[in-house]
Amino acid sequence: MSDVLQQLAEVLEQRKLQSPDQSYVAGLYAKGLDHILKKIGEEATETVIAAKDGDKDKIVYETADLWFHCMVMLADQGLGPEHVINELQRRFGLSGIAEKAQRQST
Amino acid sequence: MSDVLQQLAEVLEQRKLQSPDQSYVAGLYAKGLDHILKKIGEEATETVIAAKDGDKDKIVYETADLWFHCMVMLADQGLGPEHVINELQRRFGLSGIAEKAQRQST
Amino acid sequence: MSDVLQQLAEVLEQRKLQSPDQSYVAGLYAKGLDHILKKIGEEATETVIAAKDGDKDKIVYETADLWFHCMVMLADQGLGPEHVINELQRRFGLSGIAEKAQRQST
Amino acid sequence: MSDVLQQLAEVLEQRKLQSPDQSYVAGLYAKGLDHILKKIGEEATETVIAAKDGDKDKIVYETADLWFHCMVMLADQGLGPEHVINELQRRFGLSGIAEKAQRQST
Repeated sequence: MSDVLQQLAEVLEQRKLQSPDQSYVAGLYAKGLDHILKKIGEEATETVIAAKDGDKDKIVYETADLWFHCMVMLADQGLGPEHVINELQRRFGLSGIAEKAQRQST
Repeated sequence: MSDVLQQLAEVLEQRKLQSPDQSYVAGLYAKGLDHILKKIGEEATETVIAAKDGDKDKIVYETADLWFHCMVMLADQGLGPEHVINELQRRFGLSGIAEKAQRQST
Repeated sequence: MSDVLQQLAEVLEQRKLQSPDQSYVAGLYAKGLDHILKKIGEEATETVIAAKDGDKDKIVYETADLWFHCMVMLADQGLGPEHVINELQRRFGLSGIAEKAQRQST
Repeated sequence: MSDVLQQLAEVLEQRKLQSPDQSYVAGLYAKGLDHILKKIGEEATETVIAAKDGDKDKIVYETADLWFHCMVMLADQGLGPEHVINELQRRFGLSGIAEKAQRQST
């Protein structure tokens, strides 16, 4: 699961080298932080609407949209999903054992 | 990274067996979906405020809060972070190679 | 001040008779409640961003956008600004004397 | 209708002279802009939830909550509802005739 977020973070970094007309993400960076934040507010509302509809496919789709735009914001601010995941790990006292195992094996 | 989300999802499942006064998460389930969604709206706004402040620690903290309450909503609806991650993987054509490798090794 | 909200409510009612390509508001009705609610979430976020910028013109502009889309939602649901204003009046024990005077004079 | 917003704005100004433990509004001012903005995000989400429920009483109640917290934000920023109403009037070319009439009579 984690690999996907890490891979997506790498894709978002690469998009910083593209011109705004080459990709949606490059366009978001070009429009700036306020535009990215507006998308977060919009996608949070769409997640709420999907949940009120009890439509599971839509819930997954809109939550993915919300997390994706959060990741664009993180990338724009020089941060990544690992910072958020580490905060959750710290907060809930999770071991992340498999992760440590992975790191040891590399 | 992924293990943390998976472990957190398991913690959120276990909380369904607790009484509302035993944990914050059990309290969220007891208050119901509308209350959880209200928290998503609130945390999305706090993420926006943190980003406008350009305060990296606060951005990480608030984004963690937002993703956490999204995960409580997913759990409440019988869903998990793997559904969101799979949607992101599908959408961006990410291989999730390491993940597959992990699964093959188990 | 009130007259403006009442006049705007009347404009919003008239827009229900137009086709979606004739006006922005008719387009909002045609796209449906979810779309209108999405706009409320978006405009609330833009209001927050404007306030964080401390830009008074932008605060006024975005709050007007937010209240406007609330009024479209109210109209869509068979409600009007008078219901919201009456609720505020009731809640704060405001007399609305001038209003009563106006009504008596008509 | 207008008088109510104007009277409420006056109440909100008076609250600036109170101590935080004397009133909810004085408490909001004391907690600062970020807290007020967080409330706007929260109340916008509650308005969306009420509208999804199609519960008219709740829609009115939550929209009143949202507009009220917008008015606290405006007051905190040295602005008032008249600025928002004027912007709506300008935008929609509304005459606000009754308003002018009122002003002439005073």
